[in-house]
Amino acid sequence: MNPRPASVSARPVDEYRGDIEQLLRPLAARSADTVPVPQALGRQLAEDVRSPLDLPVFRNSAMDGYAVRAESVAVAPVTLPLAGVVAAGNAGQNPLPPGAAIKVMTGAPIPPGADCVIPVEDVRAGEDAITVERGRSAGEFVREAGTDVRTGDLLAHAGTRLEPRHIAALAAVGLPSVSVFRPVRAAVITTGDELVPAGSTLHPGQIYNSNGIALAAALGANGVEVVSVAHSTDEPSQFRKLLDAATGAADVVFTSGGVSKGDFEVVKDVLEPLGGRFGSVAMQPGGPQGLTVVDGVPVLSFPGNPVSTMVSFEVFARPILRALAGLPPVDGYRLPLRDEVARSPQGKRQFLRGKLIRAADGDPPTPEAVEVVSGPGSHLVAGMAWADVLIDVPAEATSLPAGAAVRVWSL
Amino acid sequence: MNPRPASVSARPVDEYRGDIEQLLRPLAARSADTVPVPQALGRQLAEDVRSPLDLPVFRNSAMDGYAVRAESVAVAPVTLPLAGVVAAGNAGQNPLPPGAAIKVMTGAPIPPGADCVIPVEDVRAGEDAITVERGRSAGEFVREAGTDVRTGDLLAHAGTRLEPRHIAALAAVGLPSVSVFRPVRAAVITTGDELVPAGSTLHPGQIYNSNGIALAAALGANGVEVVSVAHSTDEPSQFRKLLDAATGAADVVFTSGGVSKGDFEVVKDVLEPLGGRFGSVAMQPGGPQGLTVVDGVPVLSFPGNPVSTMVSFEVFARPILRALAGLPPVDGYRLPLRDEVARSPQGKRQFLRGKLIRAADGDPPTPEAVEVVSGPGSHLVAGMAWADVLIDVPAEATSLPAGAAVRVWSL
Repeated sequence: MNPRPASVSARPVDEYRGDIEQLLRPLAARSADTVPVPQALGRQLAEDVRSPLDLPVFRNSAMDGYAVRAESVAVAPVTLPLAGVVAAGNAGQNPLPPGAAIKVMTGAPIPPGADCVIPVEDVRAGEDAITVERGRSAGEFVREAGTDVRTGDLLAHAGTRLEPRHIAALAAVGLPSVSVFRPVRAAVITTGDELVPAGSTLHPGQIYNSNGIALAAALGANGVEVVSVAHSTDEPSQFRKLLDAATGAADVVFTSGGVSKGDFEVVKDVLEPLGGRFGSVAMQPGGPQGLTVVDGVPVLSFPGNPVSTMVSFEVFARPILRALAGLPPVDGYRLPLRDEVARSPQGKRQFLRGKLIRAADGDPPTPEAVEVVSGPGSHLVAGMAWADVLIDVPAEATSLPAGAAVRVWSL
Repeated sequence: MNPRPASVSARPVDEYRGDIEQLLRPLAARSADTVPVPQALGRQLAEDVRSPLDLPVFRNSAMDGYAVRAESVAVAPVTLPLAGVVAAGNAGQNPLPPGAAIKVMTGAPIPPGADCVIPVEDVRAGEDAITVERGRSAGEFVREAGTDVRTGDLLAHAGTRLEPRHIAALAAVGLPSVSVFRPVRAAVITTGDELVPAGSTLHPGQIYNSNGIALAAALGANGVEVVSVAHSTDEPSQFRKLLDAATGAADVVFTSGGVSKGDFEVVKDVLEPLGGRFGSVAMQPGGPQGLTVVDGVPVLSFPGNPVSTMVSFEVFARPILRALAGLPPVDGYRLPLRDEVARSPQGKRQFLRGKLIRAADGDPPTPEAVEVVSGPGSHLVAGMAWADVLIDVPAEATSLPAGAAVRVWSL
């Protein structure tokens, strides 16, 4: 494919992404569901969560050992009479007699009157007494109540996506359920008379529809609930019907195909009269783009070549959708190119498919370079499966030498 | 808590992890399920997948434009009669008359006889003819059949965890379903008379059971199917009954608590007679560990302090479970400490909870340092929610200055 100049009206990638993000950002204010903590993994807190109790709930032992008063062992060696045992789970409210020891298990309450714990392995224990070889400081191996968190302290901010460590904290303070945002809901409409579903026999001129399945997978992998995936022929009335169903059910609608300069551009033909802005963004692949608000619902119209669709999703939708879901930002790196990029279109950011090269002996293994995989063509969807990053070739570059530092974005 | 020397028998972390990995590695050979491609996101291919067809399936146009023979426009400007239109989805089998042009849409078949496509924006088009201003090369804007993938070419290796880009490729070649490994199945048994479920009223000496919920979340987040989460009192017969149910249903069993040096160590008491090896690993938290094979099923016994349980999972189980699920390795970094670590136990690797500090103006924002959050205590489970990494303090270090480079592992 030849490099071609961007049209004079082509918009910069970042500016167009800014428009999309502005339309999607209000989706941060979604309604909340109450879900049991064990089912809340990966959900996003709708409100700050504060601890309903002190943790530790009570003063307890950090070790299996013997609760004593430090002053009882100030002169050592010394033998102390054994005045009982407190297992974890015991109420442990019998006070420590002066000059005695009480055996305590890890997590068991410290008997009133004791101020330190001597680990079991540091003691010679007899039937009724223990011998201690050296002095101890008050507080040793004692966990004071409230030293992890106090009643009313913040456990996690609103907006936190709940990872196992948050689930552990919520469970430890005994919260049975939490309030989480419902996920962003998306609908997908693919278009094109040439597309047929997997499992069909291909007739001449037909290809399998991958965009619906691929966009649904990409949305699902980025915290979005896909409420419908539909396919429209190039007949405007059919597209319009599917569009109305989609905007009725979803917070955001994604379409693929029908946005370019052909004679049968069903998406553009239907959405432009509804106020849609269609035009070129200065990137390759994924140049032709459309953005419309239909009944208050943003409709993002991506071009139909499979790689164009996926790259459009990565560049324009994935960062904001991840932010809305409380997911960490897309990983980015700045790495040297292993090989030259011989040609890149003047005035367009090119997103090449690339693969990270990791240090063979690194520990941890960190990416040290990136290689281009597959070609630049927007139809090379099988080749894209071998990539793990997009290589972001700047708009002004028409070529890049081997070793040039480039930005890359994890797929 | 005071630094304490490791017991002479304490095993190095990497050696113990090696034992666990050797026991779990055979789980790579699991049975397979056939699942529809749209439901296969995140599943792991059980076999190599090869393309059942060429992609592109047929020679097609990369642009909306006009299919011509390059030789017809060798002398330009030139006007060519328009001999028809091929939309995407048309069979497009009418040959191009010599010296003529046929309008083609992106993805439409190239008419027999044509060898290049002139984009619509480069042509002056009339009703019945087009005018072309400059010569073209054969092959321009033509996608030849099979240039993405050929019939029989590998699309993805066995073991690949299916990301959206793989789903896109599988869909593009029309595969309706794929063979994927069933996930590793795990059972969790927590122990301890002091533990009560969320929502209960705490009586003196009791705490909420977080380990079951937290381990289930950690397993789920790392590609493991959790088949059961049960809780046992310190009564051996109850633990044994739950153990038998767990080993009957799961590929691997995780227990928490009951492994240390107290008087009521139900896990050790039941498993040691079954051949379990219980002892100290040279780490903090998480020192006391047990490993048993019961009826062919590995049983990993972690200590019961909530942070000890979670750190044990991170250090011993997560790397191999991710590998078994086809997930990428745990992210690791080598970063400078923001503050000193004043004390670390001689002879034990200490895993402190830490938080990455990212460059404020980085693009992409990369971690540039790490700070310790919460304390070293194994009970500080609420504090761990604020961490995003474990800081790996080497066994030989008894302190580290601010700025020292440390390895950190993403939680």
